[in-house]
Amino acid sequence: MDEREFDVIVIGAGPAGEVLAGRLADRGHATAIVEAHLVGGECSFYACMPSKALLRPAELLAESRRVPGVRETVSGDLDAGAVLRRRDEVVHDLDDAAQVPWLEQHGITLVRGHGRLAGERRVRVGEEELHARRAVVIATGSDAAMPPIPGLAEAQPWTNRAATTSPTVPSRLLVLGGGVVGVEMAQAYASLGSAVTLVEGGPRVLAREEPFAGEAICAALAEHGVAIHSGVRVTAVARPQPGGAVTLTLDDGRELIGDELLVAAGRRPATGDLGLQTVGLEPGQYLPVDDRMRVPGHDWLYAIGDANRCALLTHMGKYEARVASLVIDGDETARMTQSGPRSPRVIFTDPQVAAVGLTEAGAREAGLAVRTVSVATDATAGASFVGRSTGGTSQLVVDSTRDVVVGATFVGYEVGEWLQAATIAVVGEVPIERLWDCVPAFPTRSEVWLRLLEAYEAG
Amino acid sequence: MDEREFDVIVIGAGPAGEVLAGRLADRGHATAIVEAHLVGGECSFYACMPSKALLRPAELLAESRRVPGVRETVSGDLDAGAVLRRRDEVVHDLDDAAQVPWLEQHGITLVRGHGRLAGERRVRVGEEELHARRAVVIATGSDAAMPPIPGLAEAQPWTNRAATTSPTVPSRLLVLGGGVVGVEMAQAYASLGSAVTLVEGGPRVLAREEPFAGEAICAALAEHGVAIHSGVRVTAVARPQPGGAVTLTLDDGRELIGDELLVAAGRRPATGDLGLQTVGLEPGQYLPVDDRMRVPGHDWLYAIGDANRCALLTHMGKYEARVASLVIDGDETARMTQSGPRSPRVIFTDPQVAAVGLTEAGAREAGLAVRTVSVATDATAGASFVGRSTGGTSQLVVDSTRDVVVGATFVGYEVGEWLQAATIAVVGEVPIERLWDCVPAFPTRSEVWLRLLEAYEAG
Repeated sequence: MDEREFDVIVIGAGPAGEVLAGRLADRGHATAIVEAHLVGGECSFYACMPSKALLRPAELLAESRRVPGVRETVSGDLDAGAVLRRRDEVVHDLDDAAQVPWLEQHGITLVRGHGRLAGERRVRVGEEELHARRAVVIATGSDAAMPPIPGLAEAQPWTNRAATTSPTVPSRLLVLGGGVVGVEMAQAYASLGSAVTLVEGGPRVLAREEPFAGEAICAALAEHGVAIHSGVRVTAVARPQPGGAVTLTLDDGRELIGDELLVAAGRRPATGDLGLQTVGLEPGQYLPVDDRMRVPGHDWLYAIGDANRCALLTHMGKYEARVASLVIDGDETARMTQSGPRSPRVIFTDPQVAAVGLTEAGAREAGLAVRTVSVATDATAGASFVGRSTGGTSQLVVDSTRDVVVGATFVGYEVGEWLQAATIAVVGEVPIERLWDCVPAFPTRSEVWLRLLEAYEAG
Repeated sequence: MDEREFDVIVIGAGPAGEVLAGRLADRGHATAIVEAHLVGGECSFYACMPSKALLRPAELLAESRRVPGVRETVSGDLDAGAVLRRRDEVVHDLDDAAQVPWLEQHGITLVRGHGRLAGERRVRVGEEELHARRAVVIATGSDAAMPPIPGLAEAQPWTNRAATTSPTVPSRLLVLGGGVVGVEMAQAYASLGSAVTLVEGGPRVLAREEPFAGEAICAALAEHGVAIHSGVRVTAVARPQPGGAVTLTLDDGRELIGDELLVAAGRRPATGDLGLQTVGLEPGQYLPVDDRMRVPGHDWLYAIGDANRCALLTHMGKYEARVASLVIDGDETARMTQSGPRSPRVIFTDPQVAAVGLTEAGAREAGLAVRTVSVATDATAGASFVGRSTGGTSQLVVDSTRDVVVGATFVGYEVGEWLQAATIAVVGEVPIERLWDCVPAFPTRSEVWLRLLEAYEAG
């Protein structure tokens, strides 16, 4: 068997793995990255990137139709073909040739194939065994979870992969799950012309966010013609003919019919076939890590990105990658201080949802003395210049003992770019009294900060 | 002579005066506000609000033309008539009836007329004299400065007032001055169909901002067909027929001809006819204030907003209003800690310029050990979803002794909403190492922060 030796071996060339490999290679470590599918990973090809490529044009067109002077120039519907072609450009037609040169420039060795641990510091890829002098890093991400519903697997459902890369727009799309993937794809396909029906087993969509966020998105989806069924469970799925119609049977006896079915019911770790058992770890589970990204009990093994479940978000995976790279490079102090459900998150529906830190309920559960203030997202002079009636609510959750913002949620037109200010305020623990000195420029929509501070001051 | 007594008398009902009056009235102080023209002030009727109403539609249309899927729906030019009508809505057809109820709701007494000091704590308005038990606040703002160029005053030039409220679009517009008003109005009128020529006496436009900002705006204006002459002075202005063509003579002998001439050559304080001499102050000057907004030597007299020249920006005037209201209400600790050229500022051209804190040159002048990092504004995955080739540069100025950001400038599409994050980082003095934990969400354009931190880390 062929053998090669490196300082660091990274399994998985998604954003987290790439960032880590690049940083370590730049610091002189001989670094290999093992990838079974596409360099760039789920995010680049099947998740964040294509989904936003599908969502943004409709958002822009809606805004163009709202603003006098522009709306007079607009006629006709979104050009779905052009949107899909641009989406294909964004995902490079599912070819990673554009990503590979970046690895080469950084001197990273790309090993194509499925990597599996073969004992401590050893990774088997096909007929070759790689040895890591310093560290092995698991960055294999996650897959779509498949609920155990009778008939579901046989019905050849879409997951995020097919939904984000479909060359065509189904006439009728069924969406199973009202989380981020579910609501984003429901809106995207509705805007492209599908009749969309979304089924959420829980009482509300976007269950992890503030209730007002889910309500706003439900209302927006309904305006886009999406039929939403919440609080119902799917008891059976049937697709008698391959490529034919799919029928969902609900627990209240109703049936829903579509031409495609998207399963967006959460994620599962892509750790089932990694040889974890060769080092005493259980396959198919999220890998536990400490705040230095190390798997406890294995000082040579790290896990970053979705594989560790700290936060299933590309940006947090990249953040973890930096921490791991510093640790592997010998930094004694580097720590992951941000993680979990408090991480910044943006849902790219129209309106968007942008949130960081704790929800109000989360803050109370954490035992904080909480004061929550909220205002209309368009309660600023700056909102006069974007299309009217876009609506939405903006909210701060304040630890009233310290007068520090511990959570923020914005719902509204293009609020995703507002989030970084809140993230700096929350993570930087900038006190409310100091935030008064952080004057938002007039007439930007960021004056929502002034409204929120005024609401807090008014008690 | 009629007399009335109040706790506080505010002269000038622009944004600063309104905020102050509202806050004090809410805290139980009998408050009068004196206004000679329109409640809402320069900003609401003749500056920020109408200028952005004129600028935003063209920015949105340009973006619509860049994005596949949307551009196919767009045909024809901006509907200038619709833009002007919406602008008229934004300025309420120059009627302040919509603003007055807000004063009434807060129990503020509106006194219409020209207010002048008539000695300590006394304000004369027409035939009435108002007495202030506690404080008089000057919030009269500023007017357009008129350079002493032969023939200029007689040529009936536009100032910001006529430029922002014109019912028609001149065929040829001359703009004198390449500051914020000059570049914003040059772009607005070019987008509405004017042939615009801009003359700047200094070597570059937007002289107070980073050089790359002015260069980007020059390039954008040129793309919009604006002819720019910098480093030349106007020696004479002639308009032989009222309403006829205007001719500018330059110091190099050239002549420029237009149908209207906008003078955008800075501001002067609106303090010339305020009776300041009755309390020993010189009329027509910016009023000096301490960090509690008090005019030195007059413990009852305050000045906020443009009248004090701390920062000629609506949002800073409102900030000063809050400080003054706290001081007048008895707060011993309230201080203006932010002021002057470091204040946050946004120029609403396309691309926008958003800046806070020190420029690189300013930081060096201040004696700081400075490191500057800059990246392309569109060097993020998130930039894939806005129109391509919008360009621009983003920069941080870092005090490298403390590793704290002391200045930020962003140039690019809709970067105005990015500024609040930088303002919180700069004013909150969040150290670079902590900013690494303030993870920007993928794939927002705010990941420019990640690029900037990476550039700083790479040294």
